Amino acid sequence: MAPLPESKTDVVIIGAGPAGLMAALWMAKCGIDVRIIDKRATKVFKGQADSLQPRTMEILDSFGIADKIYKRAAHLVESRFWASGKSGGIEPCGVASDYYPELSRFHQVLINQGQIERTLLDAIKDLGNVEVERGVAPTELQIDEQNLQDPQAYPVQLTLRHLTEEEIAESPAAPVPTPGAFGINPGDEKELERKPTGKEGTEEVVHAKYVFGCDGARSWTRKQIGIKLVGEGKDSLWGAVDIVPVTDFPDLRVRSFVTTSQGTMGIVPRENGMIRVGVELDGIDRSQASPETIIEQAQKLLTPYTINFSHYDWHAVYQSNQRLGSSFSKSERVFLAGDAVHTHSPKAGIGLNFSLQDTYNLGWKVAHVIKGISKPSILKTYETERREVAQQLIAFDEDLTARFSAGEDIKEIFAKELPFTSCTSIEYGPSMVVAKTGANIVSKQELAQHIIVGRRFASQQVIEQASGCPLQFQERFPSDGKYRIVVFAGDISRPDQLKRVQKLGQTLALPLPKNQPENGENVFDVLVLHSSRREDVRFCRLPSTLCSQSQSNVYADNLPYSGGLGTAYQAYGVDRLNGCIVAVRPDGHVLFVGELEDSDKLHKVFSEIML
Amino acid sequence: MAPLPESKTDVVIIGAGPAGLMAALWMAKCGIDVRIIDKRATKVFKGQADSLQPRTMEILDSFGIADKIYKRAAHLVESRFWASGKSGGIEPCGVASDYYPELSRFHQVLINQGQIERTLLDAIKDLGNVEVERGVAPTELQIDEQNLQDPQAYPVQLTLRHLTEEEIAESPAAPVPTPGAFGINPGDEKELERKPTGKEGTEEVVHAKYVFGCDGARSWTRKQIGIKLVGEGKDSLWGAVDIVPVTDFPDLRVRSFVTTSQGTMGIVPRENGMIRVGVELDGIDRSQASPETIIEQAQKLLTPYTINFSHYDWHAVYQSNQRLGSSFSKSERVFLAGDAVHTHSPKAGIGLNFSLQDTYNLGWKVAHVIKGISKPSILKTYETERREVAQQLIAFDEDLTARFSAGEDIKEIFAKELPFTSCTSIEYGPSMVVAKTGANIVSKQELAQHIIVGRRFASQQVIEQASGCPLQFQERFPSDGKYRIVVFAGDISRPDQLKRVQKLGQTLALPLPKNQPENGENVFDVLVLHSSRREDVRFCRLPSTLCSQSQSNVYADNLPYSGGLGTAYQAYGVDRLNGCIVAVRPDGHVLFVGELEDSDKLHKVFSEIML
Repeated sequence: MAPLPESKTDVVIIGAGPAGLMAALWMAKCGIDVRIIDKRATKVFKGQADSLQPRTMEILDSFGIADKIYKRAAHLVESRFWASGKSGGIEPCGVASDYYPELSRFHQVLINQGQIERTLLDAIKDLGNVEVERGVAPTELQIDEQNLQDPQAYPVQLTLRHLTEEEIAESPAAPVPTPGAFGINPGDEKELERKPTGKEGTEEVVHAKYVFGCDGARSWTRKQIGIKLVGEGKDSLWGAVDIVPVTDFPDLRVRSFVTTSQGTMGIVPRENGMIRVGVELDGIDRSQASPETIIEQAQKLLTPYTINFSHYDWHAVYQSNQRLGSSFSKSERVFLAGDAVHTHSPKAGIGLNFSLQDTYNLGWKVAHVIKGISKPSILKTYETERREVAQQLIAFDEDLTARFSAGEDIKEIFAKELPFTSCTSIEYGPSMVVAKTGANIVSKQELAQHIIVGRRFASQQVIEQASGCPLQFQERFPSDGKYRIVVFAGDISRPDQLKRVQKLGQTLALPLPKNQPENGENVFDVLVLHSSRREDVRFCRLPSTLCSQSQSNVYADNLPYSGGLGTAYQAYGVDRLNGCIVAVRPDGHVLFVGELEDSDKLHKVFSEIML
Repeated sequence: MAPLPESKTDVVIIGAGPAGLMAALWMAKCGIDVRIIDKRATKVFKGQADSLQPRTMEILDSFGIADKIYKRAAHLVESRFWASGKSGGIEPCGVASDYYPELSRFHQVLINQGQIERTLLDAIKDLGNVEVERGVAPTELQIDEQNLQDPQAYPVQLTLRHLTEEEIAESPAAPVPTPGAFGINPGDEKELERKPTGKEGTEEVVHAKYVFGCDGARSWTRKQIGIKLVGEGKDSLWGAVDIVPVTDFPDLRVRSFVTTSQGTMGIVPRENGMIRVGVELDGIDRSQASPETIIEQAQKLLTPYTINFSHYDWHAVYQSNQRLGSSFSKSERVFLAGDAVHTHSPKAGIGLNFSLQDTYNLGWKVAHVIKGISKPSILKTYETERREVAQQLIAFDEDLTARFSAGEDIKEIFAKELPFTSCTSIEYGPSMVVAKTGANIVSKQELAQHIIVGRRFASQQVIEQASGCPLQFQERFPSDGKYRIVVFAGDISRPDQLKRVQKLGQTLALPLPKNQPENGENVFDVLVLHSSRREDVRFCRLPSTLCSQSQSNVYADNLPYSGGLGTAYQAYGVDRLNGCIVAVRPDGHVLFVGELEDSDKLHKVFSEIML
């Protein structure tokens, strides 16, 4: 037998769902050599996960790909609650906000998973000319334990099989849409069928530095590296259906929860005037569940209102487990992400977000190690950070599931958990990339009371000093693999404060680690936000280490259009006179807070991270 | 000699600049059979017109194509003025706003014409699979006067020549960029060279219903139909250069005007950290003008500051005439638009906007006539509306040019004319599509004091009744060829007011003209904006003629996120209790204002327009 063809690739991603595609997006953005494979013949086109939480929208926007999806999706800012009334039928019994502006500049939006994947697929193609290899399955995975220490080695050996049409046909596939009402997402037209590659039926061996297992709840990768999903929680049987409704029930464009003695159901709005109906299928045989039986069950709960549909788009029946991986990686060379390492119920509409944010956390770290910027030990923080988040997710889901089953009031828990479910309050623990109590270097958190070390850096409206244009500060934190040093310069119209900032410019220039990648791109980006009136500091001289010639990185905490002083410093909890310094990771999480005189500490922080 | 191949096309557009591309965009959007030709081998890639005014951004957004360009471009909200000081060098002498929020939700932005055209080219391809035929020139135009009355006839006969490479090489072309710093706009990679069509050197005859001459100041079309440009005004010689500056002059990201006894210059910010420098070339021979001589001249005026460049992108020298076409069309079958029918200086950065808005005015009218919706007489309003605007443009430009030449203070005129230069206050006179004094039907303007009949319908933030989501009302006025009936329903929490609205629903259902195109699409879209608290009218029943089942066309004048009553009614100048009715044209200009009881008048308005 002839030997199999062999090749080398920095990263192989197994599974092209949201977690896999986000991993590929980071690789494409950072210029890392990557392959992404999926055993299915085609992408997902319809239904499935449909909710993008505010933090996920921020992340998509940081790659410049939020706009289209935000415009096409249904927006969700409100939940309404219904329960059995005195007359026997349901009556409204409450309303809660599903959004408040302090959370994020983005609402939660809902759209089929096919469009979410379309957006990610287009981006990896545009940014890195990366395309998913479909109909390709891994068959063998070996790790060369001798070679783990060498960051330039390829210790993971993966055998890939290019499936034949017959082999592809054996595995369950997403239904392929036909033209007509909402049949095909814009851009999906060319992907309805897998294109033959000529390699069908062949195998090859790939040597990789890193492998990401993003292959779902039944992860092949997870089994290869001997990791188990652990947990006891189990949900009852639920059905979900995406329809254009014909109904007199009024609350179709908000999230509606209906809790009666006969069961529980929920409705969320969707793109194209659709809704998703999710309903407990108590006493129904799983094999009998169809769009019609799901709607019949919903009809029972919805009396005196009637519900039917003029268009059916997708349905599914599920019974979820709540389980967590015993580990998130093998030797920090093979990583698991998304459903491959945590499972839960889809009730709160947050699963896709946590999966995608797993690899958003992992991707830049792996890219930095491959590029020789970071020490490999940074990779350990993937598990410490995301495992804790997954535990919180499962605990929340268990609580929610229990309350649903018991027919309890769920209004409180939704309102209370909004910061968590929106993914905006997720906070990572102390580590080399989170300088807070427990880590080697500890931030002065009190200098920026609302810029919590370990959480993501939130957005505020600021003014560009040079142009006077207002912008959301977060727009200046793109996902480009750079750390950002935010100099809250304070009131630089005062000469003594200006001197402090000028001194920072001198000290900051020297001690920063110089581990630059070969192509010379800088891994640091400095932003200055001062609190003076923009007019008062028009001719202030800032050192060139802090300020580009065109002042394109200098911002004023002013209101737009000469409206006077702004509110960003207050919202960030930073003293207007004295300012502070904040370091932000490439994934937008806060790494460090210190005084303007703390450039030595900042140096130490980065010395821990950098090679 | 064999006869030339002949074919029929509804519309032929000559010239693929901004005016021609906007015309093609309307045709693509409305599903009209169209060809667009340009004698040049390639599109524009760099430099040239660079300013998109707020109203132009609104128009691009109404086609769903504003986002990318808005993000990539430089934003402009401020002008700063400099003049010779006591020390001999220039000193700052004033500042003026170039934007205020009441004008529009969009700022003015600046980006090279190549990117603007790229955006339009992508849109016509996406919407209607329309592509520009390059290297194609018209050689003969004949109008069959016998056939003008039949709206389904093809009275314009156009002979087209597919140019040979040698013929193309003879005409001046835009410089083709090379890779490198800002060399090639995203998406332009494939258009650097014209692709051979195999038709080079051949001719063909096209029979068209309508021809648009968008072929620039030296318009071939204009000469064929015997129209002359009339006017005396002439500007002095100016040079413009796009550079990445090396300078200590501070005002690079605002619009800067420098007026000294030695001459006048201006700077505007541009994409990619560039600026455009425009300077009067007094005493310089036109043939000697280069990027270096333009910058040398600028350097003289800018003392004590220094200016040079690290990257040069584009330059031009121009001496403009101020001239206006003696007519805008021949028999309303061949139309002229843009520079083909009005020329002026580029000083105020508004020319592209007026050109593009010419065909934005014309396009939907022609589409409606071709589709059998409108009477052909609607086409006369193109000239009455756009000629007056062109006159205003030329008068403004003559005033500006005179003040520049005289070294006068120009701060005042810029601030005063902002509503005009932003293109947001452009107001069309009375006609069958502007129901105001002088027209057959006159609006009750007093019912909506700030919704001026003839001007574009401005945006305000409103709340979607069904979802509670805030949005800009203008987002619900896409350029899709539909008239929009905006029912300002007033306070429908009051039973008597609700009755008035319900009655309107009954009467509005009947008399509206039924001239539907074959495919059954409705040319009317009804939007309801009430002034009640959203919670108070949750279960209000509106007639199905006013309100879709999902309430997706009902809006509340509330503040977002349960913030109470809003300010849209006040901004629109509409009475909160009693409301009114407003009809808006497919191009967003206000057609009619009346009472809720005026559905008969509305009927009459549309009877005048519709076939």
